[in-house]
Amino acid sequence: MIEITLPDGKTVEHPKGSTPLDVARGISEGLARNVISARFNNRKVEAATPLEEDGKLILYTWRDEEGKKAFWHSSSHVLAQALEELYPGIKLTIGPAIDNGFYYDVDLGEHTISEKDFPAIEKKALEIARGKHDFRMREVSKKDALAYYKDERNPYKLELIENLEDGDITFCDHDTFTDLCRGGHIPNTGLIKAFKVLNVAGAYWRGDENRPQLTRVYGISFPKQKELTEYLHMLEEAKKRDHRKLGKELELFTFSHKVGQGLPLWLPKGAALRERLEQFLKKAQKKAGYEMVVTPHIGQKELYVTSGHYAKYGEDSFQPIHTPREDEEFLLKPMNCPHHCEIFNATPVSYRDLPKRFAEFGTVYRYEQSGELHGLTRVRGFTQDDAHIFCTHDQLDEEFKNVIDLSLYVLGSLGFENFTAQVSIRDPEKPEKYIGEVENWEKAEAAIIHAATEKGLDFVIEPGEAAFYGPKLDFMVKDALGRQWQLGTIQVDYTLPERFDLTYKGSDNELHRPVMIHRAPFGSMERFVALLLEHTGGNFPLWLTPQQAIVLPVSEKHENYAQKVLNSLENHEIRALLDARSETVGKKIREAEMGKYPFMIIVGDQEMTDGTISVRRHGGEDLGSITVEALSGLVKEEINSTLKSF
Amino acid sequence: MIEITLPDGKTVEHPKGSTPLDVARGISEGLARNVISARFNNRKVEAATPLEEDGKLILYTWRDEEGKKAFWHSSSHVLAQALEELYPGIKLTIGPAIDNGFYYDVDLGEHTISEKDFPAIEKKALEIARGKHDFRMREVSKKDALAYYKDERNPYKLELIENLEDGDITFCDHDTFTDLCRGGHIPNTGLIKAFKVLNVAGAYWRGDENRPQLTRVYGISFPKQKELTEYLHMLEEAKKRDHRKLGKELELFTFSHKVGQGLPLWLPKGAALRERLEQFLKKAQKKAGYEMVVTPHIGQKELYVTSGHYAKYGEDSFQPIHTPREDEEFLLKPMNCPHHCEIFNATPVSYRDLPKRFAEFGTVYRYEQSGELHGLTRVRGFTQDDAHIFCTHDQLDEEFKNVIDLSLYVLGSLGFENFTAQVSIRDPEKPEKYIGEVENWEKAEAAIIHAATEKGLDFVIEPGEAAFYGPKLDFMVKDALGRQWQLGTIQVDYTLPERFDLTYKGSDNELHRPVMIHRAPFGSMERFVALLLEHTGGNFPLWLTPQQAIVLPVSEKHENYAQKVLNSLENHEIRALLDARSETVGKKIREAEMGKYPFMIIVGDQEMTDGTISVRRHGGEDLGSITVEALSGLVKEEINSTLKSF
Repeated sequence: MIEITLPDGKTVEHPKGSTPLDVARGISEGLARNVISARFNNRKVEAATPLEEDGKLILYTWRDEEGKKAFWHSSSHVLAQALEELYPGIKLTIGPAIDNGFYYDVDLGEHTISEKDFPAIEKKALEIARGKHDFRMREVSKKDALAYYKDERNPYKLELIENLEDGDITFCDHDTFTDLCRGGHIPNTGLIKAFKVLNVAGAYWRGDENRPQLTRVYGISFPKQKELTEYLHMLEEAKKRDHRKLGKELELFTFSHKVGQGLPLWLPKGAALRERLEQFLKKAQKKAGYEMVVTPHIGQKELYVTSGHYAKYGEDSFQPIHTPREDEEFLLKPMNCPHHCEIFNATPVSYRDLPKRFAEFGTVYRYEQSGELHGLTRVRGFTQDDAHIFCTHDQLDEEFKNVIDLSLYVLGSLGFENFTAQVSIRDPEKPEKYIGEVENWEKAEAAIIHAATEKGLDFVIEPGEAAFYGPKLDFMVKDALGRQWQLGTIQVDYTLPERFDLTYKGSDNELHRPVMIHRAPFGSMERFVALLLEHTGGNFPLWLTPQQAIVLPVSEKHENYAQKVLNSLENHEIRALLDARSETVGKKIREAEMGKYPFMIIVGDQEMTDGTISVRRHGGEDLGSITVEALSGLVKEEINSTLKSF
Repeated sequence: MIEITLPDGKTVEHPKGSTPLDVARGISEGLARNVISARFNNRKVEAATPLEEDGKLILYTWRDEEGKKAFWHSSSHVLAQALEELYPGIKLTIGPAIDNGFYYDVDLGEHTISEKDFPAIEKKALEIARGKHDFRMREVSKKDALAYYKDERNPYKLELIENLEDGDITFCDHDTFTDLCRGGHIPNTGLIKAFKVLNVAGAYWRGDENRPQLTRVYGISFPKQKELTEYLHMLEEAKKRDHRKLGKELELFTFSHKVGQGLPLWLPKGAALRERLEQFLKKAQKKAGYEMVVTPHIGQKELYVTSGHYAKYGEDSFQPIHTPREDEEFLLKPMNCPHHCEIFNATPVSYRDLPKRFAEFGTVYRYEQSGELHGLTRVRGFTQDDAHIFCTHDQLDEEFKNVIDLSLYVLGSLGFENFTAQVSIRDPEKPEKYIGEVENWEKAEAAIIHAATEKGLDFVIEPGEAAFYGPKLDFMVKDALGRQWQLGTIQVDYTLPERFDLTYKGSDNELHRPVMIHRAPFGSMERFVALLLEHTGGNFPLWLTPQQAIVLPVSEKHENYAQKVLNSLENHEIRALLDARSETVGKKIREAEMGKYPFMIIVGDQEMTDGTISVRRHGGEDLGSITVEALSGLVKEEINSTLKSF
């Protein structure tokens, strides 16, 4: 018998040679039906791998990332088999799972694959899947492995095997198909109920442009047809909501080839939106006792040598800026913390002055390779809604709770209801990796976990994920399409107070070291606006949207009245504009709908006579003829229901 | 007879050989008494220089910059004579007039001069002055000039003469004193009624640290003793109001050696002040139809090659920023205009969309040598309250007037009542220096002059002072000490629209080139705050000041009531804070006075019982026991009287 320890700490006994599937069956039939992969003693295993010793077992289902990875990796074997059967003579290279699905890179020889071939490939793959073929791993000697792929005339696999050693080489078989493979599969092909080829692209062998060009076939698969349908719908929605597309349509931001890649230019509507977000957070921060500061966008190289950032990122960053005649070197600031430490150091600090909370919408510059740039989510210059809290160790708990409160207020006011948190703490087995007193670390970790619990956060604790300088809490939000985004972070830092020799005078009249919290509820203005665009599809919360209403006169003779209505809206603090173009009102409505104005206000003869407005909600709802006062009431009500007071 | 043309275009006839003084006498005795220098046919002349031909004559008095220069330059001769008489054997070098007074650099040999010697020097100088010695210029041959200074054993003057040619060498005599001199004097020493040695400093001969070190003696002189007294008072006031000193005392900003010279860090109180100024201007700009944009602080080098800035400033600026692995070069942005041009270019523009007014509080970086840096007035990074107006040529007049309106509103709301303007137009004799159509230039110059006239500005027109890319208007304000500062600028630009190929579609369906206006009413936030500090001595207008009131509980038992008062003040939108330190109320009042809080609110037993507050105005005025409501009324009234609506 062997003793199996499960993640919750419980142990079960099973005969030696039992499989993860057997263990699952021992727990429940339901679990057994869903187990698709496992990890045993920190090693990837199959659901059908015999377990030969005592150990820790984690069972994965489709709901786990690991489970999905095994599902999609297995699906790439099926894709490869289908391709080999449809295009004889092609040479397989590698086929990993990725975040959403999988791909296989193949040397197609004289064959080509285009979109019209996808249905045939999908059909063949599903045929194979329906065969319910078991995935079976076996160890192969280097000699036999080389012999096998020499027979297959596959130079790619031969090259891969050349770099492996005896004992490390495994093949995976299913049906008539065999592949060089490190493992991590579902029990059999039958679990794959839906299969879709998404697209094809070129890819160089081993990413090297001097080596042969291969064809990368992307696919995705699911245990249920319904899930595929939903995924394809989500993809389509995501395309519609792509923040780059919406940002252009709504005239929020642009990029200029001349200014440079990854450096957004905020157009008037985008800048107004951003200003509103900033003012919103500034107001809440003021209530929470933050003070704004302003610092430059460069600093002497020395500053970042002191902070440690230069040693860590220097060579991969924007290179130093020299001055013409003096021997000085500056760096674009990659973060605001060193500047804020220097502000802390500018005046003597007493324990009575703590906590000090310095906030800045600080624009930082970080070098990203051009290939990695993506709209507003991956840029080279971005504005953090940054703040640094300097406090005593005893104040950490309270401050952490306050930051969580602020973060929850921010997420709530912007319509994110679905979020989780991750608390990253030390790896208890490697205490030497972390700087700072053990006692303070213990206090800080306890403080974070306590704060997260007390605030009712749905959080997981990840040992070993803390930064070397302190533990942290990250917020993860799910957007309207169910996609997960990492957002704001709250980090405890023991390093910078040391490196900048920050001190305060305690009640004992001695100098003490404060602790520092870095935090940014939005993360960055750029990334947050991108997320907000994709989450809302451009229909921003009413309090935030650049223009809340657009006034559409039916014809030229209604323009004067329309102008009066506009003034009246402005007096009621409704942000509105007037479309006085000489277009038909139908066209104006269509375009206003595209422009996502929450309220369209149509004024014609009837309205002029009655002194009313005809209001149409974005999306089509007709609110009928009402007064500006009535609309103002509606607007206030809706805003109050989202924008809770802090 | 010769014909003399005066600046107002009138001509007068005088016998050949008449002097500027004779001409002045012909106009009025008063003028003759005040004439101290002149310019004839664009050449500096003395009041006593015989005029031998027809020509244009400008007469200068003490009220002209040129007059002051002549006065102070003449005074440096008197200083030199006094020094030679007091310290025999010293060697004179050069002695120019400067912005405020004059100096003389001398090789003192074994003598030394310190502050205790100043009265003796002043006494001697005034003795000489009272002698009413005429200044008389005479031409000297190079040979004679060299012989003279060989006798005097003065290697410095010999070196100066070596570099001059026969015909260019003049000496000036007065009393027993002779100096190598290019001219520009007052008629005689008797006009100097007040004389003050200000300080001494070291200076290298010809500014070269490898050459002998000299002693620079600074002085100032006036036609009236009263003016000297006022000047010395002003100097003392200026020292008290030095924005670097006040900025530190009021905790507005700081500099960090580690961050770098000339890169201000705005502390919480300074950042709040700045934010208030920005919001004030944003609000007015919104009413004036501006739209905010946000652009990055770097741009590709190419962007500045296009704009022409790189050719002009590249080598003297912060050097390019390279990227680690890609062949890209960026520059810190020295101005925002190229970015705004790219925003204009981001979407097609119709004549109906014009004017477009893009505003940004844009932080720019310009390299200044470390020796030239000075507090917030000369920095390496500063935030311009920048905007660019893109309009048709026909809209220029109206737009210019609007910008003047905005500038006047800004200056008025900040307590500047004393300002003038300078309109810089083309040099009519050098049309080739300017780019753009002559017709447009004419229109633009006329528009500016028309706008300035219509808005009632006190302005001068300076031909030849226009930038090559367009005419401009600069505002000059006088601060409370009578010092002149150049502030906001309004510039017309024809170049950038060309260089960035900006176009709009006209009503004729053809593409046209817009014209661009650059403008910044504050100039920069840094410089403006510095000026405001020195102008107000730190007593900012009530609407602007970071904290309007400070609540001072008499003792600990009044703290609760003080907190209630604070809340009530906040509810009345009065920015206030509480000084709850356990210090005596006397000490708290003294410190609050230093901190320049406009209202000190003292609460003790009596106030607690009556539900009132005792209010003391900064400066000492006792407003007695009043209610928070009454104070709120006073505050509103004072704010409304400064901050007029726009």
